[in-house]
Formats: sequence, structure tokens, C-alpha cells
Amino acid sequence: MKLWQKKYALNKTIEDFTVGNDFVLDLQLIEYDCIGSMAHAQMLGKIGVLKSAEVKKLVKELKKIIELNKKGKFRIKKEQEDCHTAIENYLTKKLGNLGKKIHTGRSRNDQVQTALRLYSKAELNQTIEKVELLIQSLEKFSKKYKQVNFPGYTHMRKAMPSSISSWSNGFTASLKDDIQILKTALKLVDQNPLGSAAGYGSPLTLDRAFTAKLLKFSKIQELTYVQNSRGKFEAFILSALMQVLLDLNKMASDIILFSMFEFSYFELPNEICSGSSLMPHKKNPDVLELIRGNLSVVQGNLIQVLSLIQSLPSGYNRDFQLTKEPFLNGFQVTQKSVNAMIVVMTKLKVNEFKCRQALTEELYATEQALKLVNEGKTFRDAYNEIGKKFA
Amino acid sequence: MKLWQKKYALNKTIEDFTVGNDFVLDLQLIEYDCIGSMAHAQMLGKIGVLKSAEVKKLVKELKKIIELNKKGKFRIKKEQEDCHTAIENYLTKKLGNLGKKIHTGRSRNDQVQTALRLYSKAELNQTIEKVELLIQSLEKFSKKYKQVNFPGYTHMRKAMPSSISSWSNGFTASLKDDIQILKTALKLVDQNPLGSAAGYGSPLTLDRAFTAKLLKFSKIQELTYVQNSRGKFEAFILSALMQVLLDLNKMASDIILFSMFEFSYFELPNEICSGSSLMPHKKNPDVLELIRGNLSVVQGNLIQVLSLIQSLPSGYNRDFQLTKEPFLNGFQVTQKSVNAMIVVMTKLKVNEFKCRQALTEELYATEQALKLVNEGKTFRDAYNEIGKKFA
Amino acid sequence: MKLWQKKYALNKTIEDFTVGNDFVLDLQLIEYDCIGSMAHAQMLGKIGVLKSAEVKKLVKELKKIIELNKKGKFRIKKEQEDCHTAIENYLTKKLGNLGKKIHTGRSRNDQVQTALRLYSKAELNQTIEKVELLIQSLEKFSKKYKQVNFPGYTHMRKAMPSSISSWSNGFTASLKDDIQILKTALKLVDQNPLGSAAGYGSPLTLDRAFTAKLLKFSKIQELTYVQNSRGKFEAFILSALMQVLLDLNKMASDIILFSMFEFSYFELPNEICSGSSLMPHKKNPDVLELIRGNLSVVQGNLIQVLSLIQSLPSGYNRDFQLTKEPFLNGFQVTQKSVNAMIVVMTKLKVNEFKCRQALTEELYATEQALKLVNEGKTFRDAYNEIGKKFA
Amino acid sequence: MKLWQKKYALNKTIEDFTVGNDFVLDLQLIEYDCIGSMAHAQMLGKIGVLKSAEVKKLVKELKKIIELNKKGKFRIKKEQEDCHTAIENYLTKKLGNLGKKIHTGRSRNDQVQTALRLYSKAELNQTIEKVELLIQSLEKFSKKYKQVNFPGYTHMRKAMPSSISSWSNGFTASLKDDIQILKTALKLVDQNPLGSAAGYGSPLTLDRAFTAKLLKFSKIQELTYVQNSRGKFEAFILSALMQVLLDLNKMASDIILFSMFEFSYFELPNEICSGSSLMPHKKNPDVLELIRGNLSVVQGNLIQVLSLIQSLPSGYNRDFQLTKEPFLNGFQVTQKSVNAMIVVMTKLKVNEFKCRQALTEELYATEQALKLVNEGKTFRDAYNEIGKKFA
Repeated sequence: MKLWQKKYALNKTIEDFTVGNDFVLDLQLIEYDCIGSMAHAQMLGKIGVLKSAEVKKLVKELKKIIELNKKGKFRIKKEQEDCHTAIENYLTKKLGNLGKKIHTGRSRNDQVQTALRLYSKAELNQTIEKVELLIQSLEKFSKKYKQVNFPGYTHMRKAMPSSISSWSNGFTASLKDDIQILKTALKLVDQNPLGSAAGYGSPLTLDRAFTAKLLKFSKIQELTYVQNSRGKFEAFILSALMQVLLDLNKMASDIILFSMFEFSYFELPNEICSGSSLMPHKKNPDVLELIRGNLSVVQGNLIQVLSLIQSLPSGYNRDFQLTKEPFLNGFQVTQKSVNAMIVVMTKLKVNEFKCRQALTEELYATEQALKLVNEGKTFRDAYNEIGKKFA
Repeated sequence: MKLWQKKYALNKTIEDFTVGNDFVLDLQLIEYDCIGSMAHAQMLGKIGVLKSAEVKKLVKELKKIIELNKKGKFRIKKEQEDCHTAIENYLTKKLGNLGKKIHTGRSRNDQVQTALRLYSKAELNQTIEKVELLIQSLEKFSKKYKQVNFPGYTHMRKAMPSSISSWSNGFTASLKDDIQILKTALKLVDQNPLGSAAGYGSPLTLDRAFTAKLLKFSKIQELTYVQNSRGKFEAFILSALMQVLLDLNKMASDIILFSMFEFSYFELPNEICSGSSLMPHKKNPDVLELIRGNLSVVQGNLIQVLSLIQSLPSGYNRDFQLTKEPFLNGFQVTQKSVNAMIVVMTKLKVNEFKCRQALTEELYATEQALKLVNEGKTFRDAYNEIGKKFA
Repeated sequence: MKLWQKKYALNKTIEDFTVGNDFVLDLQLIEYDCIGSMAHAQMLGKIGVLKSAEVKKLVKELKKIIELNKKGKFRIKKEQEDCHTAIENYLTKKLGNLGKKIHTGRSRNDQVQTALRLYSKAELNQTIEKVELLIQSLEKFSKKYKQVNFPGYTHMRKAMPSSISSWSNGFTASLKDDIQILKTALKLVDQNPLGSAAGYGSPLTLDRAFTAKLLKFSKIQELTYVQNSRGKFEAFILSALMQVLLDLNKMASDIILFSMFEFSYFELPNEICSGSSLMPHKKNPDVLELIRGNLSVVQGNLIQVLSLIQSLPSGYNRDFQLTKEPFLNGFQVTQKSVNAMIVVMTKLKVNEFKCRQALTEELYATEQALKLVNEGKTFRDAYNEIGKKFA
Repeated sequence: MKLWQKKYALNKTIEDFTVGNDFVLDLQLIEYDCIGSMAHAQMLGKIGVLKSAEVKKLVKELKKIIELNKKGKFRIKKEQEDCHTAIENYLTKKLGNLGKKIHTGRSRNDQVQTALRLYSKAELNQTIEKVELLIQSLEKFSKKYKQVNFPGYTHMRKAMPSSISSWSNGFTASLKDDIQILKTALKLVDQNPLGSAAGYGSPLTLDRAFTAKLLKFSKIQELTYVQNSRGKFEAFILSALMQVLLDLNKMASDIILFSMFEFSYFELPNEICSGSSLMPHKKNPDVLELIRGNLSVVQGNLIQVLSLIQSLPSGYNRDFQLTKEPFLNGFQVTQKSVNAMIVVMTKLKVNEFKCRQALTEELYATEQALKLVNEGKTFRDAYNEIGKKFA
């Protein structure tokens, strides 16, 4: 039974269409929705809407759902639409009338926002941890090959001498900045949506500070801001994840290029390469191509979210529901890509001979020009003189 | 066992990462992949690589797979990666050494393109049929309410008198143009990729004209064009689907607005409305909000595909694999949205009283100005004179 | 004086903001707007709103504007907002009261659509011509180097032997398909918007078939469809241009890669290379990097247009105005890129020695496997046997 | 003369194509490029490459350029390509050989990054100031109408009673969060790129800490990170600006809707409305439609930047040049939109009568259900009972 069940039946095509795949996606939110519901129940106890014994029973059953879910045993039926309904249905089945009280003073609008915030905080923290692991693997790599120089390129042509460490350290520095951005996202979502109901508060006097404390939110989010931030926070988080993926995309592009036979600066061991169904000799860098491509996947997710929320008036609009999938997917794709890159950086080898061999004369043209500067030429004249050699 | 299985084992994290969810997505391609394989087998028979009896056996088993799949009984295991592997594994299990011959002269690169082309043709045709049904429902609606006038708006302000028919006929005309665009897409994909192997042909002399005939492709696609068109065709098809969704988005936006209590030109019967978990009185146009939002979903899909293929050199790159999901999803989302809109247009009611009531004086200001033109004023002077009335 | 000038003054900040840069962009539309206005004047003559002598005078002055504009002497002042106002102001200055009649029965809404359609047809035709020139240069290139083989790549690793001709012919085939898509766009925009006024027709009985004939539109566009197609047509055209740019992006990516010192299959003569301000030896393929990047520019334009028009109700909304710049820019960027690529293909050299040298053993692994097939092995067993050589 | 001028002439088509419109865009960067050059000259003095008198002369001329530029008198010729060349040319013209020394140890790659960083910091600070002004105007508005209640909507249907203050305060809170995000962007770009040359440092021992201090950067950016952050920083800043524009888009959407005659909660005074060229009665909210649309403009800019930088290997690639226009445009569009919204919020009137009148019975359905809860019903039963009234 839906939370908003009416006497009349919904047209079947319309029902299928509107449910979409929330009943699948919401499996990722069950735990967070239960935690939010526990806080809501405790708050209803505090303001006298529920009795203390009622609160205990609700909390106990919600904890049971979390346990069931961890074992993969809590189901959301398609006709239940989402995790919120499945959970209320479960409580009513177990606790009878008491289950029907859990939604007092709450809307699915603030309920789902609460679950998404808790989910976001957990996932942002996990992403940060993974990026830190990647930084460690880069630092190890940099240290291991710190004696090795190889060409630096601009415009995909040899420019000046560079080094493996310098290549690697650039990414380390960039990933460290990404973490700062992810932390800004963490701070942004750290505000309690619970108690805003449909965005216009509740005739009941809810204690939002109390649920904020229980849920470890550092402040209470302004009433109408709660719904207006739906999608907007998601867009910012996806933009933050994009920063990580931009680094991975460039690392992958470099490694694919520099591990081509024609360069051979890098070597990918067999265990991280794929083969071809036709060509017996092939060892392909599929893992890196997919890391590279995942930037585009999340770019699409970002555009979906940004487009979904634009030009909509204030308050909840159902279009918001469609932001859930690209948002959850953004986290998954980013984390999987970081994980894969950690393996790559751990396994990647540098061919020192090929690196050295590639340090050809033209890379030192700038140095030669600057020598002429030392001898008294202006830079522009020295540049022109050396330039003639390579004309 | 993978088609490209090597002696060494792939790193587990990397294996999981590279397989992705192809083994789920490919369920939609099994039938088309079997049809492509039957044609390939018959061609191998024709050029003498397989014996006639061998061809028969292969075709028979491939037909069996199609039957199994229709009943939902053909599985693709995760370790098989994709439908191509699952099918070859099945054939080898059933036919022994003969199964190991099916891939002769073929690469997964041209194989998947063949399946995707056949899939695209079927889905484009289905989309066209559904759009035609929507046009019919619009024409019925237009006819039913052909006597009813209501305000035409510009800048979301009343502009001039219009009519329900005119509103509806505009969409009919637009959807008819969309069909022309979908037909261009159909023509574009109507070229045989099979026999291009990895994009560089095969040392065997394959008869591509023969498979083209069997698969009803009207021409043979140029060798290197086959892989270069991966993603490019998908992007064009998604752009074509966007044209349909742009119409649905505007229809939905109009219906949501005009069925607001404050207008009440349109009425949505209960059976296509959803309720609220908190507010007992609500009847919400969720179906239309989701149709409206699906434009953004496919816009994101389009961007994913466009971004995935850009700045890659010629030939197959694994990034292409990631174009499959947004592409298949684009078709599904579009067709579901059209289906839902057909139901809406069938159920939608016009409140003739409210429409008439809204035909207020200012809508006739232009007519008044043109009357003054008839009496000899220049248009700009007449405009200024009437304008003063509404200052 | 604006066409809609009221007694009251507009807030200065708001005025500046709303005018935007239409007065600059519209320089590209003046000629088309005059042609549309001539047809409108002739039609007003035909239906008796204007006298024959009046029509002649208007047409004469409009032709004069076209002449002035060709010499770069027709100005649009910022306070005039757009070309429509500048033209009506000019007519009124020259012809007095007669100028004030030109806008009878017309809105800027159908007027700008008319100009944009005529512009689109002209630009689409020009784009097609340029693409045809590029095809010619590719065919010449293909012919010139038809004897030269070089490696075909997949996953950016050597796959199988290919040839310069095959590389080139793939693009030729793709560009030919692009032309078909551009022609579909031409057909789509070939419908007369003039006479739809603000989208709800006119109290005057305008002869839309007559203006269609004068302006060479093959049909009359449905009333409300005219405004509903604003942005939608632009989006489709930009999608069509993207198809061309996707080809150029891949050509550029290939040429940049294969002209790297590490490959040297291609050589870029000095006259199309740029240098570095710091490094005296550099010869950079800037032209190709910019062609490659222009795909992203137009991708952004496409997203701007798609996003601008979504979730807006029927009828003109001012947001549409913002579609003009990305649309005009899309044409310019595409045509300039094609032009530049024609020069590149004309100047590009193939280093036959390097191509031949790169045809190393592993490229023939597939051929070796197929030889074993000829000797009676199944393909999969042959594949495994040869595969061991390259393990 | 270009900084990288060679003996040979560049093909004319290619030259036009590669220059693009940098010579126009760079007018916005002249001041920042001079400031960067002054710091570079002072540093060259400190490390002994220039004499103290030389540094003084260079600094003096660079200050002169800043003055000229403020008066609109410093020109960049098309053949000079960009501001960097125009400035070096000017110095050489004024100071002879000394001018040719300014580029010692520097590349245009780190030079333009330096100018863009200084520009970004200035523009981010300005954006923050403008957003703060908008917050002030919202707070005034909220205070002025703090007694006025009006309907809160969900799904564009009346939901529960809300208030003008609550509507307004939601945006205030959101804009305050936007400022935090803009400040994160400020911190991100606050690192010195100067001295990284082409990304691989310089054979000279440059004192990057010294230029950091002079230019008020709080740290030195890692060598290879400088070029790798090109576009990446721009993308993050555009994402931050999008957050502001998302707020403006929703405010504009609300005001357009609620100022429709059919609602009349809000009233837009004449001085911020535009008219129609055809319909004498129209007063259109063009300013708000353009604010709404500007979100899409910057969304397109963001996509351009994100797409331009993806799948490129490390080091400068000319594609980066194309990120300049969407980046500069993003700042301009955002700031203009905020400015326009400040005017709107200052002029916007609330029609208290219409607001009150719209507070109809159904808005209190939830309150009624909660009354039944107080009387002992479970929420779900109370909901069902009240729901029947509105069936």
C-alpha cells in the first residue's frame, strides 16, 4: 500500500511509469532512511506525540530493518514505490497502529532529503579516503622512480626535460586540492532537512534542533531552502567528483599514450591488461580507457541533474526524483575509478632505458637559448638564434 | 571463459571494473547478436570456411538461444563479460569444436556493431509507431474540443485569443517532423558493419554483400568508418529522440500549468494523479513532471555519448563500451514517455467554462489596433493609441 | 525608439541587461530580415492593406538597406535593441508614415523566425558546400597515397595492417553521411513562419501561401508550431553540425598523434605550424588542436540551446533570445573548422618510409591464426596457439 | 610580430583560424598581465638577470600600459594574437633591447595562467560582493512583507500555508552557502603559477616564492600541476557560479509565475517590464526570463570547458585557449544577472490582498489531519479520513 493511497485505482501504465526504478535505487538508502526515522521517532517522543514505550518499539524495529538490509534480506516491492513506503509498511505490519504514527509531522519530501544527506556524508567521506589512498600510491611511485627523467610535452610534442616524479607530483597536488573541494561539499550538506515537512513546516511544533543533534548535523536548514536545495546540492557534489575524475582522466590519457609501443616510457603488466577476441597478440589497456571514459559518464550525470532542476518553481516537483539515479551513480563511478587507478599505480612500471633514450637534443633548445642570455644576449635574440638550428 | 582468455589471471579489482554491467545490458542485445551470428555463419558457409552441415547446426543452436532468451532463460554470467562470449560459450558447450569456429574472420568490434544496428533499426521503428499513436490521440483531442477557445500566452502573459485545437495541432505538426528525423536516423544506420572485423578487414575474403542481404542492410559500411561511427550514430539517434522529448516536455509543461487550480483550463482525472504522503488533499501531476524531466535524462545521455567519443584517435577504444548504457536508456526513456503521454492525452479533459471565462479584454487589444488601421491609421500610431488604455 | 516604446522609461540597468548583444549579433541577420520584410510588404499589398505604390517604396528602401549592409554601412544602435527596430526606424525616417505601416499584422516573433529560417537555409547550404570541398581534398589525398600501408590501431595499440587510403576513405564516407543529415535539417527548416504573428495568428487575413512562395518555403508552418519550434530547430541543426565536427575531431586527433616524432607517419609543413614563445625548437599543430577543440565549443552551444528551451510553456518566452548567439556561433565555428581542415589535408604529407617501418610482426598475428584455420584448426584453438607467441 | 615568429610565413587561412578572438578577449586581461609581468621583472632583478635600473624601466612602462588600458587606449592588433605579444611589442618599441628581455625564463603558458589567476581572484571577489548586495535586498524584502502569508506549492499545486518571508529567507540561506563555495574557489586559485614556464620549469633558478609574495599568492603551485589545472580550475569556478545562477533561476521562475495575472501575488512595476511590438497591452517580464535563461548560458560554458580539457595528455595543449571565452563569459553573465536581480528585488511589490485571498481551505487539510492525531487517531488513519473530503 502506498503512503498516499486513495480510494481510486491508478491507471496501470501511469503507475508503472511513475514508480520508475526507485524501488531498486532505494536499496542504497534503506539504512540512512532508518536512521532518519529513528531520530524522527525520538523527537516525536520528546515533544509528546509518541509515548516513550512507543519510541522504543519503533527504534527497535528500525534497527531490525537495518540488520535485515545488511544481510540483503529487506525487500522493496515495486508496488511500494520506494524505501519510505516499504519501511512504513513493515512497521505497520509488525507494530500495528503504532506503525501508522511514524509519519506524523513528516513528509516524504523532508524524509528523503534526510536520507540523501546522511548518504552523501558517508559517501563523501569514503571518496576522500579513497583519494587519500591514491595519493599514497602516487607518492610511492614518485619516490620509487625519482631518479628517472623523461621528456615533458606541450602540444603533444617534446618540449623540455621533465621527470617521472614531476609528472606524478603534479597529480598528487591536484588530488589534494580535490579533497579540499570534497570537504566543502561535506560542509554544505551538513544541515538538517528533517522537520521541514513539504518545505512549509508543520502545524506541530517539531524540535528540529533535537533531530539535528541526533543525526550529527551542525545546523538546521531553512524551511523553503530544503526543497530548493534538492538537485542543487547534488549538482555541487557531482562537480566536486568531476574534479577527481578530471585528474584520473588525464592520468589515464598519459599512461595509455606513454605505454604505447612507440613510447614505452610506461609498462602495464599483463595482469591489468585485456585481450582481443580476434587478434591473438593484443594486450589492451581497457582499465585505463574505462577510467578515462568515466569522466564523461559523470559529466552526463551532472548535466542531467542541472537540467532537471532548472526553470522549476519553488517547492518539491517530481522531476527531482530523477536526480537520484545520476547522483548515486556519480559516487559509484568515481569511487570505482579511484580504486582501479590505485591498482594501476601500484602495478605500473617505468622503463628507465626508454625514458633516457627519449631525452633528445631539441629538449635542450631552451637551455641553449638561456646560455646565450647569460652571455649577454637578450632573450628574444637568443631565442631567434637557437630557433634557426631547428628550422 | 572469455573470448580473449590468456594464460595469466587478471587482477580481480580490474576484472570487476572492466566488466561493468555489460552482462546486464546485453540481455537486450541477445536476439540481435544471434541474428548477426546466423548471417556470419551462413556467409562462412558460402565462402567455404564452414561446411553446409556445420552452418545448419550453428543456425539451429542460435535459434534455440533466441527462443530461450524470449522465455528469459538465457543467462549471461558476469565472468563471461558480454552476450558475445555467453553465446560462443553456449555454442561450444553444445557443438564442441564447431562452436570454436563461429568467430572465424570476425571481431567483437564488428559483431557488437552489427547487433547494435539491428537493435537500433527495431527500436527506431517502434519509436516511430508510438509517436504515430500519440499523433492520433492528439488529433482526436483536437477534434473533440475544436469549438473551444482559450488564451494564447507569450512571456507567460495573456497575448491573443487562441484555441485548444491550435494548441494541439502545433504539437501534431512538430511530432510529424520528428518522425522525418527518426527516419533519417533509420537510413543512417542502415549499413552493414559485419565483415569489417577490428576495422581493418580480415585476411579471409569475407562476402560482406551477402551478410548485408541476409541482414537487410541496404549498403556495406566502409571499413574504418565502422569503428569511427561508434558513438557518432548513437549521438545522432539520441539527438533525434531529443526532438520527440522536446515536444513532450513542452506539452507536459503546458498541461501542468494549465491544470493548476489558478487556470483550470485542463483537468486531470484522478486515475492519472498521485497523492502526497503528508497532505491528504493533494492530487499531483507526477506523470507529467516525470515526462517533463525525462528530457533532461536523455540530454545527459546525449552528453555522455558525445563526450565519450571525443578526442579519441581512430579505431576501437574501450571508452566506446560506455556508450551502450546511455544509448539503450535513451530509447527506453523516450518510448515510456510517449506511452505515458498517450494515456494522458486520452484522459485529459478541457474545462470549457474556465477557458471561455479567461478570454478577457486585453486579449483583443491587437484586434482593436488593427481596426484603427482599417480606419486609416498607421499600425505604429494605432498601436500607441490602444497601448495607452493598458498603461 | 523601440518598437514597443511606452510612455514610461525603463530602468537603465534593466534596459542594458535585456538588450544584451542582439544589436551586434543581428548584423548577421539584416539581409534576411529585409528579404522577409519585402515579402511581408508585398503580401500586405496583395491583400489590400498597402497600396501598390507603397509596396514599391518599401521594397526599394529595404533593398537599399541590403546594399548599405553589404558595404558595412548599416548600423544598429544599442538603444534600438535589434535589427528589426533599426530597419523599421530607418523606413520611418525615410518614408514617414509609410514606415510605420510595415509591421501591420506582424510580430517580431514571426519576423525573427523568418529571418533565422532564411539565414539557416543559406548557412546550411554553405556548410554542405564546404564539406563537399573537404571530401574532394580527402579523395585527392587518398589517391595520392594509395600505395602506402601503415598500422591500424585499436585501444591505441597496433592491431592489424591498414592503409592511408583506408584511413582517409572512412572519413569520406562519414562526411557524405553528414551531408545527408544536413539536408534533413534543410528540409526541416523549409517552412514559412511568417504570418503566424505572436503564434496565434492575426485578426487580418494574411496570405501566408503568398509569402511562402516569395520566400521559397515549400510549406506553411502551423501557427503555434512556429514559436514552439524556436530553439528546437536550432538544436537539431547544431546536432547536425556536431556530426561534421565529430569527424573533424577524430581526423585532428589522428593527425596530431601520427605526426608526433614518435610515429612520424604524417608530416605537417612549417606553414601550418605555430611556434612557442619560450622554446625555440617547437613546431606545434595549433591548427589541429583548435579544430579538435571546436567540437567542444559547439557541444556547449548545443547544450545552451537545449537547456534554454526546456520546461518552458508554449508561446514565445524571452529566454529564446539567448539561443541566437550559440546558434550563429555554431555555424561559424563549424565552417571555419572545415575550411582549416581543407588546408591541412591539402598540405599534409605522408612519410612512406616511417609507415612501412612501422608494419611490425605482431600486426600479422591474426593472419597467422587464420592460416592455422586453413590448415584445419578451429579459430579459437588457432587463436590460443598464436597468442602464446606474444604472451 | 609574434613572440614565436619564424622565418617562414604562416598560411593565411591557418593564421586567421588560430588567432581566433583572443585579441578581443584579452582586453580583459591586460591589467593582470602587466601586474604579472611587473612581478616577473622584479624577480629577474632579484636573481641578477636584470639590473635594478632595467627593472625600474620595465615596471614604469608596464604601469603606463595599465593607465592606457584604463582609458581604453591600449590596442591589441589581430596579428599580435594576444595581450602578451602586444605588451612585449610595446615594451620593445619603448625600451629597445630591454623589452626583449622581459620574457626571459617565462613561457606564455605560465604567463597567461598568472593573468587568469589574478583575474579570477578579482572577479570572484566582485561576485561575492554582488551576491552580498542581493542578500541585503532580499532581507529588506523579507522584512517589509513579513506579515504576509501566501500559499506554499508542491508539484505546482497548493500544498500548505507559507509566507513571503519564508519564500525569501530560503533564497537568502542558499545564497549565503553559495558565497562559501565561491570562497573555496578563491582559495583554490590562490597559488602561484608563475615560474613554471611551460610546465617543466626553467634552466634558470627562478625565485617563485618571491613572485608569489609580490602577487599575493599564498602558495607556489607544483610545476606540472600548473598546466594540468588549466580548465580544471575554470570548470570548478563555473560550477560555483552555477550555484548562484541556480538560485536566480528559481527566484526568476517563481516571480514570473506568481506575477501572472492568474496569481497576482507579485507585481512588477512598469519600469522593469518590456512591451510587445505587436500587442499594445503587453507588459512582459523580459528581465526575469533572461535571468532564468542565463543559467543555461553558463551551463553551456561549463560543458565547453569540461569537454575541452578531457582526454588530453599532460602539458599545455592549444585546446585550452578555447576555455578562455566561456570562462570570462561565465563571470560576466553571472554578475550581470545578480545586478539585474538586485533591481528586481528592490522594485518588486507584493499584492497582500491576492496573497490572502489565495489561502483557501485545502491548504489546511494537513492541519486538520494533525488535529485528529491530537484527538488520538494514528496519522495514517487521520490522513485517510481527511483525504476523503477532497476526493
